[in-house]
Amino acid sequence: MSIDDIRIVLVEPSHPGNIGAVARAMNTMGLTRLSLVRPRIFPSAEADDRAVGSIPILRSARVVGELMDVVGDCRLVIGCSARARTFPLPELEPRACAALLVAESAGNDPVALVFGTERTGLENRDLDLCTHQAVIPTGGGISSLNLAAAVQLLCYEIHLAAREPGDATAARPARRPSHPIAMETFYDHLERALDSRGFLEGDLREATKTKLRRLFGRARPSPSELKFLHSLAKMIHAEGE
Amino acid sequence: MSIDDIRIVLVEPSHPGNIGAVARAMNTMGLTRLSLVRPRIFPSAEADDRAVGSIPILRSARVVGELMDVVGDCRLVIGCSARARTFPLPELEPRACAALLVAESAGNDPVALVFGTERTGLENRDLDLCTHQAVIPTGGGISSLNLAAAVQLLCYEIHLAAREPGDATAARPARRPSHPIAMETFYDHLERALDSRGFLEGDLREATKTKLRRLFGRARPSPSELKFLHSLAKMIHAEGE
Repeated sequence: MSIDDIRIVLVEPSHPGNIGAVARAMNTMGLTRLSLVRPRIFPSAEADDRAVGSIPILRSARVVGELMDVVGDCRLVIGCSARARTFPLPELEPRACAALLVAESAGNDPVALVFGTERTGLENRDLDLCTHQAVIPTGGGISSLNLAAAVQLLCYEIHLAAREPGDATAARPARRPSHPIAMETFYDHLERALDSRGFLEGDLREATKTKLRRLFGRARPSPSELKFLHSLAKMIHAEGE
Repeated sequence: MSIDDIRIVLVEPSHPGNIGAVARAMNTMGLTRLSLVRPRIFPSAEADDRAVGSIPILRSARVVGELMDVVGDCRLVIGCSARARTFPLPELEPRACAALLVAESAGNDPVALVFGTERTGLENRDLDLCTHQAVIPTGGGISSLNLAAAVQLLCYEIHLAAREPGDATAARPARRPSHPIAMETFYDHLERALDSRGFLEGDLREATKTKLRRLFGRARPSPSELKFLHSLAKMIHAEGE
């Protein structure tokens, strides 16, 4: 994995606070190479203020006069812009962008993800240097994301793509659940405890046992939680002994 | 699709600008229901300024004193927090969160996604009302996203999940879980029952109560299962009466 070879480029950012927020967004996802094309104000206290723990990214940022200065050696240049074009580039959603950026940077080729100025996006002359266009799907009253929010979203997808494609939907339990064998031992213990109190008598005996299994089964207790549940069962049983 | 039934809740947001940025982030992805628990400053010109086209969401925001006021009728409450806990909830990544929120809101059940205060995240007493924990995977020098950036990322995943419900990996629970208010009543009952048996004495009292909340919270009992659990608590209590 070499997502460090992915360059994040801001063209003419106008709000210095956004530059700091972009550095922070990149840093949370492991990206560090920031380039600024004709920033209106930089460096600035406001950018530092919003960078929260990411000042080194600001300090090592490249500041250049032309987009070509940053992307000249990049085989893959993705422009992120909501702006409609007469002759559009191939459009990619963030997930597809991320997969492409990660795949192509793996061979140590520098690649770039370029964001336009806040109000108007990328100019045509900048889009001319791009090989692809990133389009963030939107579905609400407005279609324009804050600059740093857009960077956050793309960097998040890059992080996921670099980590392991495809496993992002898996929910992992906070702790490793107990083995089924340990659960059985607990159910036996609980059954004896409840029996000793007459709680399982009558027609509903099996239904009640099933109910308890479903509940504790869904909770997927860890070994230490199971130990605790045993102490609870023991307490319930206590009087009968 | 009814992602409009998904409530975005900010607990004690301290920077008014973030509230506006959150409204904008929600709006780009089609979410409109914002609730604020004890905001430090609201309304404010700074929030309006950052809302960019999303002022109506700020104007219709609910402002309440307690998280319970917003999530009391929600069967699914996901807390977004980087804070480590001794007794963690099931952790879901954003994509899995989104699938679950979209699946469970499809039946017109209100569901909530809760974000903590900027510096310290969600307090334990707020996490106690959550059924799941959202964890944004990070991979860099810092692990803490800007509040609005985190909201943007989750709302983006919700928009994608709502757009393509076919690939939702989350299964809806077989039975509708109980409301948090009903769960509180049960926890009170269980506490009294355990107290009557001396099970909650000593230093571990609060830890034990939290342990029980985690377990039963994860199990998400249905109303009829909760009725059964009350009978169990009553049985535990019986001797003392």
